[in-house]
Amino acid sequence: MKLWSMPSSGNSYKVRLALALLGREAELVDIEAGSPEIVVAHATGRLPFGKAPVPELPGGDILPESNAILKWLGEGSALVPSDPDDRAMMLAWMFWEQNQHEGTIAVRGALRHYPDRRHLATPERMAELLDRGHAALAVMEKRLAEHEWLVGSSVSLADICLYAYTDSADSRGGFDMARYPGITRWLDRIAGLPGYIGIDA
Amino acid sequence: MKLWSMPSSGNSYKVRLALALLGREAELVDIEAGSPEIVVAHATGRLPFGKAPVPELPGGDILPESNAILKWLGEGSALVPSDPDDRAMMLAWMFWEQNQHEGTIAVRGALRHYPDRRHLATPERMAELLDRGHAALAVMEKRLAEHEWLVGSSVSLADICLYAYTDSADSRGGFDMARYPGITRWLDRIAGLPGYIGIDA
Repeated sequence: MKLWSMPSSGNSYKVRLALALLGREAELVDIEAGSPEIVVAHATGRLPFGKAPVPELPGGDILPESNAILKWLGEGSALVPSDPDDRAMMLAWMFWEQNQHEGTIAVRGALRHYPDRRHLATPERMAELLDRGHAALAVMEKRLAEHEWLVGSSVSLADICLYAYTDSADSRGGFDMARYPGITRWLDRIAGLPGYIGIDA
Repeated sequence: MKLWSMPSSGNSYKVRLALALLGREAELVDIEAGSPEIVVAHATGRLPFGKAPVPELPGGDILPESNAILKWLGEGSALVPSDPDDRAMMLAWMFWEQNQHEGTIAVRGALRHYPDRRHLATPERMAELLDRGHAALAVMEKRLAEHEWLVGSSVSLADICLYAYTDSADSRGGFDMARYPGITRWLDRIAGLPGYIGIDA
């Protein structure tokens, strides 16, 4: 499998982390913002929704959206709970991630990190993203203060998908993570999983 | 089943539309922004992620996130494709909806519609949301110019979840939909489905 992946992006990192935890290999094609490779990926239709990550199978099939890729990769593995209610709740966290968490914490980090987006980082917008990002982190803290994992009693795709942008919320997004002891323990728990890799691996 | 639902919200409408198309009934509890019912829902823990819609089963189980609810309601029905690749692509559209479509088109509509959010509607933000929303609509148009449905050859949860905020993109969000003849035909196709209800039904 070939994986079109943006090294600096948490959405791409999620998929690399899931592959590592599952002990699976992929041929990475790095398509950093502004690189020639991303121009090729767009021109050849490899990014149907305009974004990375996208896996490409030997037959040419491609699948966009990091969390849909996680679900597709994880199906039948220990990263997907066997209980139907737990599976439904896992998907709930994954949809919430793309809307309330990625849409605030990752967006705030991107507005700080990527020079071509700085004109959008108005004081009103940055303050709104800080408030809404903290509200999202408080939802996670409520669960993780009393449970080891977001769903059920073992690590699932919900944890993998939320790890990426939570781990960089302080350095990228400017969020004070000392407020969240439950989240901090959970970040350490994930970093201790067999096969774990960091975003720079 | 009891459904905590916000009448003015597309996310809640998605679930009511799916129930109608599936011929299923639910006891609706309206929790409009600012209503006493939403205060009760928060106080009793009925909105674990702070948002509607949320179904509540007779045993008290609750499930947040509109698209996770659609997946849970639709499982085993004709609204979920039997082909595994089509199911993966259906989820891709559903994650994309919560990130790129709801996060731009619905957000722009909300900034125009809800008085308590108007201070966030800066010219920079509204222009960014207009550009990014049109980019999302162009992704849908590319598919719908040549296909009847977003995935496979029949209506699926991908269509249901994207219908809600696309149907109100002009009236709520201020998007010029005359640019998208494929989307316009698709909106009419959905409105013609047996059991269809509008957002005000």
